[in-house]
Amino acid sequence: MNKKVAVILSGCGVYDGAEIHESVITLLRLDQRGAQAQCFAPNIAQHHVINHLTGEEMPESRNVLTESARIARGAVKDVRELKAEDFDALIIPGGFGAAKNLSDFAINGADCSVQPDVLAAAQGFAAAGKPVGLICIAPAMAAKIYGEGVICTIGDDADTASALQKMGAEHVECVVSEIVEDKPRKLVTTPAYMLAQSISEAASGIYKLVDRVLELTHADH
Amino acid sequence: MNKKVAVILSGCGVYDGAEIHESVITLLRLDQRGAQAQCFAPNIAQHHVINHLTGEEMPESRNVLTESARIARGAVKDVRELKAEDFDALIIPGGFGAAKNLSDFAINGADCSVQPDVLAAAQGFAAAGKPVGLICIAPAMAAKIYGEGVICTIGDDADTASALQKMGAEHVECVVSEIVEDKPRKLVTTPAYMLAQSISEAASGIYKLVDRVLELTHADH
Repeated sequence: MNKKVAVILSGCGVYDGAEIHESVITLLRLDQRGAQAQCFAPNIAQHHVINHLTGEEMPESRNVLTESARIARGAVKDVRELKAEDFDALIIPGGFGAAKNLSDFAINGADCSVQPDVLAAAQGFAAAGKPVGLICIAPAMAAKIYGEGVICTIGDDADTASALQKMGAEHVECVVSEIVEDKPRKLVTTPAYMLAQSISEAASGIYKLVDRVLELTHADH
Repeated sequence: MNKKVAVILSGCGVYDGAEIHESVITLLRLDQRGAQAQCFAPNIAQHHVINHLTGEEMPESRNVLTESARIARGAVKDVRELKAEDFDALIIPGGFGAAKNLSDFAINGADCSVQPDVLAAAQGFAAAGKPVGLICIAPAMAAKIYGEGVICTIGDDADTASALQKMGAEHVECVVSEIVEDKPRKLVTTPAYMLAQSISEAASGIYKLVDRVLELTHADH
């Protein structure tokens, strides 16, 4: 098949960047299925830097694109170079980076906005009718990308689900091993570490998400 | 089974720390096989910080334990707390961190030494006859841990193999999807990103290494 899939990262580490396990499992499954992944990230400063050992903020500044390069082994591009016409699908892993760097959902909740370059890229896929996968907290951006009525999941957290609904999304509860699909929009979502108690639990839903996103790249699905 | 396996990380990122894909794939496979993983890392400054986008050194200092916590989602302990009696096996993923932070093999080659706390922990497993898995460039520490005659692989790079042999190891060439086992010492090694051209290639050998290390925790193997 050799489908081309763009993956937008948001740094490197669950508390201030892309969730590392979710990102690696996404890249592993894409490669196992014969798809070519290309990583992207916004070339902006991180919202902040968290010491992942203590949970406390560190007096440093790090760049989202530069730190994302750690997960991508150097092979990451500025998200401003991402054009939907060059790819068959888009996947965005979670981690607080999706809610602090790709958007400000962690700070502003339902009043959040999505980083303009990321929004433009994702809306390009939506407009082209190409499949998109959003993992963990990344579906907090779904209503901004697709508008009112978009169907998605962040698992079963009532407060987060309520914020998504306030933004116009239709939230569907989902267990960690499953996916939710908005069929007309070709949007696939899975809770991953919004619910996962272990890395293999996270993998179970992410494998299904990647597989379904790749299936949806075939026009007849 | 619920075997307990210690994993020693060396930072977070292939060029100055633990190789992220190798580390996550190790943790994923351990969890899928029902083993309990506990991450450790030395509480020391990194040898240096590399911008993974440009390959250039950055004018910063980062701590190996703190950065390793990104891969471990916070659940990492100082390697000085690691006692072989508390675990059934030990696995050390690769990345330049194994050759710059856990040892200085990247700088001093055959004249390298292993960080004292890491060496003490690893030698505890060797002395107890408990299985150890070393991935990618981590087998550069094998001769320091086990002494002369230890059998291991780093793939097929002639210069690296020659340095290992100078240190007293017996190097065996190995393809990326396979493992090399020193049966009397219960040491398992695999080349991973010393040879892998893709993440699923790296996973193929790491899955075999994790599976064999877990088999070796049963006394009758």
